[in-house]
Amino acid sequence: MAVVEVSITPLGTAGIGISKFVAGCVEIIRASGLKHQLTPMGTIIEGDLDEIFAVLRRMHESPFNAGAQRVSTSIKIDDRRDRPEHTMAGKVASVQSKLDR
Amino acid sequence: MAVVEVSITPLGTAGIGISKFVAGCVEIIRASGLKHQLTPMGTIIEGDLDEIFAVLRRMHESPFNAGAQRVSTSIKIDDRRDRPEHTMAGKVASVQSKLDR
Amino acid sequence: MAVVEVSITPLGTAGIGISKFVAGCVEIIRASGLKHQLTPMGTIIEGDLDEIFAVLRRMHESPFNAGAQRVSTSIKIDDRRDRPEHTMAGKVASVQSKLDR
Amino acid sequence: MAVVEVSITPLGTAGIGISKFVAGCVEIIRASGLKHQLTPMGTIIEGDLDEIFAVLRRMHESPFNAGAQRVSTSIKIDDRRDRPEHTMAGKVASVQSKLDR
Repeated sequence: MAVVEVSITPLGTAGIGISKFVAGCVEIIRASGLKHQLTPMGTIIEGDLDEIFAVLRRMHESPFNAGAQRVSTSIKIDDRRDRPEHTMAGKVASVQSKLDR
Repeated sequence: MAVVEVSITPLGTAGIGISKFVAGCVEIIRASGLKHQLTPMGTIIEGDLDEIFAVLRRMHESPFNAGAQRVSTSIKIDDRRDRPEHTMAGKVASVQSKLDR
Repeated sequence: MAVVEVSITPLGTAGIGISKFVAGCVEIIRASGLKHQLTPMGTIIEGDLDEIFAVLRRMHESPFNAGAQRVSTSIKIDDRRDRPEHTMAGKVASVQSKLDR
Repeated sequence: MAVVEVSITPLGTAGIGISKFVAGCVEIIRASGLKHQLTPMGTIIEGDLDEIFAVLRRMHESPFNAGAQRVSTSIKIDDRRDRPEHTMAGKVASVQSKLDR
């Protein structure tokens, strides 16, 4: 199980707002059924890494299909294999528990 | 107003878990009073960019103070000045509204 | 044609240096025949994006095969389609030419 | 001594090419005298971290001064303190030496 953050940005679009393009990308994750969380700086996905790679590849195409001509995509993978479970909730809880001591 | 994501990772620590180090960094943001959100892949901060830069610099030192000898810090700034308000909540709402059409 | 930067970092390895793991990843790119450049902060690859995605996936596995139990992989894609050529050399030359005016 | 990569991208500029803005940022590093390397995906700087933070802050403003209204800046810091020297050349040589075995 991996936890992956992706941020996709079209460049050279006349408008300064890009949420229309981001929404198009998030719809692809929704359709995939993968567990995910929309944040102010990207979308975090949890699951099998090969499944996630395939979704990332389709997400990267989305702004081109919506008219963009240049896309910058940032991906960060946190892949932990010393324990069976590595989840978004588990990562946050692990930090939270040390904050509230 | 800028929205900034930071992720701080100590390298070469014997343990595979790093949440103890991350918690130390989050405590510095908490003490700063800046509005922030802990996510599974980093912490997102909102506010005046110079204030945020000062907090980021202190956060980067935190793992060294906790015994780390090498630290990798990733920072991503989204700084939008065509409108008075640029917030974490506003960015998510802007995408959300286009998803639920 | 896309230009992609990848940086792969094993976490929780006892040693502070990680160049042994990085070298293992670079060998996978070398074997792929894709044009690439090793930099102090990652490796930049140029070519067909699907080919690059497949190489990135194998690179991400490399530190696990060398004994790591947690791997953080950062990928940044610059994919430009308004012109036939989008290369590492072209991107640097484009900036360089505006510096030396 | 830290090794830092920075990539600065204006959003919503009508043109798809952004090298004019990137060149403006690189000129700020050149004026600082800090050792740096222009790559196809960003600029890597070596030196005292506080000096670098000040230069990064000025670089981030540069696209706004050139007319941009939204700027995305990515910064990655590799700060190693178990040895007196941590340089761009040293990092590449350390990987290179393990490749050519």
